[in-house]
Amino acid sequence: MSDVRIHNLAISLDGFATGDGQALDSPFGHAGERLHEWFVSTRFFRAADGLPGGTFGADNAFAERHEPGIGAEIMGAGKFGPPGWHDDPDWKGWWGPTPPFHTPVFVLTHRPRPSIDMEGGTTYHFLDATPNDALEQAREAADGADVRIGGGPTVVRSFLAAGLVDHMHVAQVPIVLGRGVRLWDGLESLEETYDIEAVSTPSGITHLTFTAKNR
Amino acid sequence: MSDVRIHNLAISLDGFATGDGQALDSPFGHAGERLHEWFVSTRFFRAADGLPGGTFGADNAFAERHEPGIGAEIMGAGKFGPPGWHDDPDWKGWWGPTPPFHTPVFVLTHRPRPSIDMEGGTTYHFLDATPNDALEQAREAADGADVRIGGGPTVVRSFLAAGLVDHMHVAQVPIVLGRGVRLWDGLESLEETYDIEAVSTPSGITHLTFTAKNR
Ligand SMILES: NC(=O)c1ccc[n+]([C@@H]2O[C@H](COP(=O)([O-])OP(=O)(O)OC[C@H]3O[C@@H](n4cnc5c(N)ncnc54)[C@H](OP(=O)(O)O)[C@@H]3O)[C@@H](O)[C@H]2O)c1
Ligand SMILES: NC(=O)c1ccc[n+]([C@@H]2O[C@H](COP(=O)([O-])OP(=O)(O)OC[C@H]3O[C@@H](n4cnc5c(N)ncnc54)[C@H](OP(=O)(O)O)[C@@H]3O)[C@@H](O)[C@H]2O)c1
Repeated sequence: MSDVRIHNLAISLDGFATGDGQALDSPFGHAGERLHEWFVSTRFFRAADGLPGGTFGADNAFAERHEPGIGAEIMGAGKFGPPGWHDDPDWKGWWGPTPPFHTPVFVLTHRPRPSIDMEGGTTYHFLDATPNDALEQAREAADGADVRIGGGPTVVRSFLAAGLVDHMHVAQVPIVLGRGVRLWDGLESLEETYDIEAVSTPSGITHLTFTAKNR
Repeated sequence: MSDVRIHNLAISLDGFATGDGQALDSPFGHAGERLHEWFVSTRFFRAADGLPGGTFGADNAFAERHEPGIGAEIMGAGKFGPPGWHDDPDWKGWWGPTPPFHTPVFVLTHRPRPSIDMEGGTTYHFLDATPNDALEQAREAADGADVRIGGGPTVVRSFLAAGLVDHMHVAQVPIVLGRGVRLWDGLESLEETYDIEAVSTPSGITHLTFTAKNR
């Protein structure tokens, strides 16, 4: 069976994966770009934007694992758009006409709408479904490839709590955000079902990888 | 001027420095010994207990920094004893007749009692005072040496919030506790006043060091 993977999920020291006050002009609220500086500095990210250069060390090695072998993504309504996007019939995500997914993307929302075909192979589907049911549909669409849970933290937590995640990569950034949406809430004893590795890199990031036991 | 230091403060991935339900038979509540396994395995800790062996790598190098140059400790009432110790006139701390401090120890409490002389150079003093005032007394007692803030998390937070800490070493353990007392609450933007380093070790611990800027 294909795997369910999470990559490059950035959190602060105090466990927030996004800041307070998400809005159209601040997708991460008061966190700004601070959770993602390490990521946008990588060769992987810059190349996807058509830019030269970028870091080529351990941060980049982790970043690059985002794409290969992924056949579908599941994301939350809070990642797809800022508060209020449900009321804008023309909202098509943050990522412009050619989103970087290049696969079917399943947006979990209590207010689904018709699917949208984008350029470059991305199709947005909108689902009001349990994590289990959403995963079943995403797996079918992925056609044997893996499914990435793309965030945000609320959706990641719900898939972890349901025991559906095979592999998770979290990048811990040395800042204290103080407020926002926490990743770890409700996940007491997660270490009992995952093997956990930690590695810090010269940029100050600590990469935490979680591999489900007995798989 | 002497420095104010914090060493070997263990937290979970979700930032808890102690578990829920502290009691006489469970000093760390439901966390049990899980926050301190790395520490009690070190050569430093075992030698202090008169035991041979122990780890001799990076975890031990951090652990050993606990003692040298320290002339006094400040701790909270929650570290000194379990809930209810204030009502026991004979309570003299968790550490027996010869506590491992070997210096004056200032216990912050809203219910102070007379000082207690212990064997081996430890004297417990009980103070109802602000962090600033407590530090002034501890500095005087330390006689030019450094002052260690010994925990728990509530007291550490209050000294960090008051801008009194020069150096902090936190050991992050790869477990999700889910409940207890958090270290990071109320410390938003701590990175603005500290240089932060992270290093992970083969035991799975990530050592975070905080060095106050401009000192
Ligand atoms: N740190 C990172 O690496 C990272 C990664 C991705 C995103 N982010 C950030 O995280 C933030 C979004 O995260 P978030 O936790 O606020 O929200 P989120 O996880 O993206 O979405 C949560 C929302 O999705 C809908 N939803 C979730 N599960 C559902 C289900 N089973 N059925 C139906 N609807 C469901 C609900 O929205 P409705 O009821 O409103 O439809 C819910 O409020 C954004 O700021 C984004 O930029 C950060
Ligand atoms: N993870 C680690 O490395 C580590 C290190 C040390 C301790 N611990 C654990 O942490 C727990 C204790 O931490 P905690 O956060 O619950 O408590 P704590 O920080 O040890 O003590 C807090 C208490 O100290 C008193 N206090 C604090 N500041 C004061 C002030 N300025 N003036 C007067 N009184 C003051 C108050 O008690 P009263 O009002 O009741 O007097 C307050 O409730 C224990 O489980 C201990 O085993 C863990």
